[in-house]
Amino acid sequence: VEDQTQMKNKRCSTFDLFLFSFCSQNVMQVNFFCDYEESRGNYLVDVDGNRMLDVYTQIASIPIGYNHPALTKVMADPKNLGTLVNRPALGMLPPRKLPETLFDSLISVAPKGFSRVQTMACGSCSNENAYKSIFIWYRNKQRGTSKPTPEEERTSLLNQVPGCPDLTLLSFMGGFHGRTLGCLATTHTKAIQKLDVPSFNWPIAPYPKLKYPLDQFERENAQEEARCLEEVEDLIEKWAKMGRPVAGIVIEPIQAEGGDNHASFDFYRKLRGIAKKHGCAFLVDEVQTGGGSTGKFWAHEHWGLDDPADIVSFSKKMLTGGYYYKDHFQAGEPFRIFNTWLGDHTKNIFLAEVIKVIRTENLLEEVKRSGKVMLQGLYDLQAKYPHLLSNARGIGTFCAIDLRDEATRNVIPDKVLACQCFSIRFRPALVFKERHAHLFLDIFNDAIAELR
Amino acid sequence: VEDQTQMKNKRCSTFDLFLFSFCSQNVMQVNFFCDYEESRGNYLVDVDGNRMLDVYTQIASIPIGYNHPALTKVMADPKNLGTLVNRPALGMLPPRKLPETLFDSLISVAPKGFSRVQTMACGSCSNENAYKSIFIWYRNKQRGTSKPTPEEERTSLLNQVPGCPDLTLLSFMGGFHGRTLGCLATTHTKAIQKLDVPSFNWPIAPYPKLKYPLDQFERENAQEEARCLEEVEDLIEKWAKMGRPVAGIVIEPIQAEGGDNHASFDFYRKLRGIAKKHGCAFLVDEVQTGGGSTGKFWAHEHWGLDDPADIVSFSKKMLTGGYYYKDHFQAGEPFRIFNTWLGDHTKNIFLAEVIKVIRTENLLEEVKRSGKVMLQGLYDLQAKYPHLLSNARGIGTFCAIDLRDEATRNVIPDKVLACQCFSIRFRPALVFKERHAHLFLDIFNDAIAELR
Repeated sequence: VEDQTQMKNKRCSTFDLFLFSFCSQNVMQVNFFCDYEESRGNYLVDVDGNRMLDVYTQIASIPIGYNHPALTKVMADPKNLGTLVNRPALGMLPPRKLPETLFDSLISVAPKGFSRVQTMACGSCSNENAYKSIFIWYRNKQRGTSKPTPEEERTSLLNQVPGCPDLTLLSFMGGFHGRTLGCLATTHTKAIQKLDVPSFNWPIAPYPKLKYPLDQFERENAQEEARCLEEVEDLIEKWAKMGRPVAGIVIEPIQAEGGDNHASFDFYRKLRGIAKKHGCAFLVDEVQTGGGSTGKFWAHEHWGLDDPADIVSFSKKMLTGGYYYKDHFQAGEPFRIFNTWLGDHTKNIFLAEVIKVIRTENLLEEVKRSGKVMLQGLYDLQAKYPHLLSNARGIGTFCAIDLRDEATRNVIPDKVLACQCFSIRFRPALVFKERHAHLFLDIFNDAIAELR
Repeated sequence: VEDQTQMKNKRCSTFDLFLFSFCSQNVMQVNFFCDYEESRGNYLVDVDGNRMLDVYTQIASIPIGYNHPALTKVMADPKNLGTLVNRPALGMLPPRKLPETLFDSLISVAPKGFSRVQTMACGSCSNENAYKSIFIWYRNKQRGTSKPTPEEERTSLLNQVPGCPDLTLLSFMGGFHGRTLGCLATTHTKAIQKLDVPSFNWPIAPYPKLKYPLDQFERENAQEEARCLEEVEDLIEKWAKMGRPVAGIVIEPIQAEGGDNHASFDFYRKLRGIAKKHGCAFLVDEVQTGGGSTGKFWAHEHWGLDDPADIVSFSKKMLTGGYYYKDHFQAGEPFRIFNTWLGDHTKNIFLAEVIKVIRTENLLEEVKRSGKVMLQGLYDLQAKYPHLLSNARGIGTFCAIDLRDEATRNVIPDKVLACQCFSIRFRPALVFKERHAHLFLDIFNDAIAELR
């Protein structure tokens, strides 16, 4: 949302766009070109000098705002120069500081029960490799050893069973887990993301369609959740009988790209139980929810379970992709989970600094406070404009509100960043404070008022 | 290979390894921990202070050696700080300099016939998205429009035909194209990479098994190549009849991970012709061969074709992943090829500098010179030790030599980096000069002499 007091000029830099159109296919997606040198904290500056309060932060991937001094200091530290300039193949030739940096960064914020992590370059690669870890674990369990038969070795090279087994992953309608071919088979949000791409025939369960606010519709919502959980168990049993067992269940704590669909913590606790009962791995995809914006470092920590997951994947605000995994998901042999870079050590170094800032600036507490202002403000707005807005919802600053219909939606994009469906989703950085929430609500109120 | 004159101490830093074992699954893969601050040019320094002549360069991914002063200067330039510290979502909110930087980097070295590029974070993501571009192009061609039917939209969300069509890609035995699920379906190198992971049933053609040196076995090799090309055409026709048409052919100019298998330029010219004849896209995977180590910027430029490919993918030495594509592979709608980061602009900035260095230091000419020394030296060594070495081969410094048997192989790893099969593959940086080739050959000769 633009900070209108600072607004100079509202146009894309046409020269940049013109140049870009000769070499890129993304031109139609460009909102505007940014001046990242001039951007600060919660404020993104475009090339025309407009300064905007950013509530979407590069699709939820800027943890502590733009140009935080702690991060610029990392760049200036000559100790870091070597890994910044020479990108190591982290799996074979790690830099001296890799283990220490992992303990200072990813391991220091590992969800309860996890002590192991595999870094990857992005969210899709994280899930792709997490899926592989699940399949390897499942087959090791089935055959009682990690040693394959010669027949398995031979057929694997030909994409055939038993080497490449006919296992499946169960995912949910409305779920988003990435855009590479394996991930896409578990993504069910928009046709445009999947269309024309061959996929795997894997089971897809319904995700609860709940009424908001959740605490006012507890009975109906519980019924809807029970229906979905029953369907999950039916699918697991049905696919096992077909000889195509469900090796794992993959789900987001809040369906983000799908339009910010919530389910109750009780739903997730029961789903985890079903996975365990049927011997399926349970993968919680925290690519968009992880990193603090729900007021806890991991959104699934709200569920209140000691053993909530077998694997937790992440990316975005964590700066590096990757996944935490329980010990038994450690592949027996080297080079099973591997690629040249296995992430980017630069990002681990930045993340260690980000986590230090989150702690010293008490940012999870800030998120709880500004999230409360944000959600209350959205409730007030939907009460004020019931013909335009509905379904305000959120945890921490991970908030959303729905537009009543497409006509309403089509007037909005000029003023509000990145609303691609009927939900307007808010993804501010962790440095978004109460005063920013108030400022946002004022601007949003003015924008909505204009629509009446 | 270690530079023995400088060798102090040969042990992994056991403390680092101990620490690492608590949080990572890669411990068994670690060769040793490196001191990247102390490494320079062709010399990699480990944490124990050993200085080694590096002929494998982080799995072929260091273009101009360690800590090149031009790259450290990029880091110090305050103009770059903004994009280094704040990672943009390149598809939606690109930095001001993105188009200019792409012209200075990727577009300035685009293979003949290409003016468009899509950046990605790594090699696997590059191929995954290149595959998607192929499938989208093929379906658009089939239906005569990029507009899907409502039935296609509906079924795509369910992973079903016609929305997710039953198209295939043709790949080659011994080919390597990455380790995510889509890429893995075209990778056929080692069982350990594919085992236990569900795959697509796609056609796999034989890759020519040639005799080296190629110019001494022209007649037999031509026969072998003809056999493989015939099989390719048979497969395309057979799979079309099965209703599962081959949308594209994917191949490396030299099968790298597969053990440095070469085919003649004539083979590739004919294969390109077959692809065109049958309406299949032709994807050249230059992830390992691209960036100059064959003495041309792209290995496929050796083929001498005006129109050698529809898509060329890259990563590693290019620092960023991505792929060049012909205009008709531009997806009609935005957000079909998309993800949050779409690469990392930092890498584009570094690449622009790398390309400047390649030009001003005339590095492709250096590669031709040192490559000649290298290959001649390997010929001499296999003549000297015919019971140990065979099949010396290479283009530029992209060279390899085979060990006679496993017993020989098992003695080698201590002295030579990263030989994982019977082939020892050499992947020096572009700053590897004639004197380094001589130094390497001396050290290698001594190591082999010890085996006798």
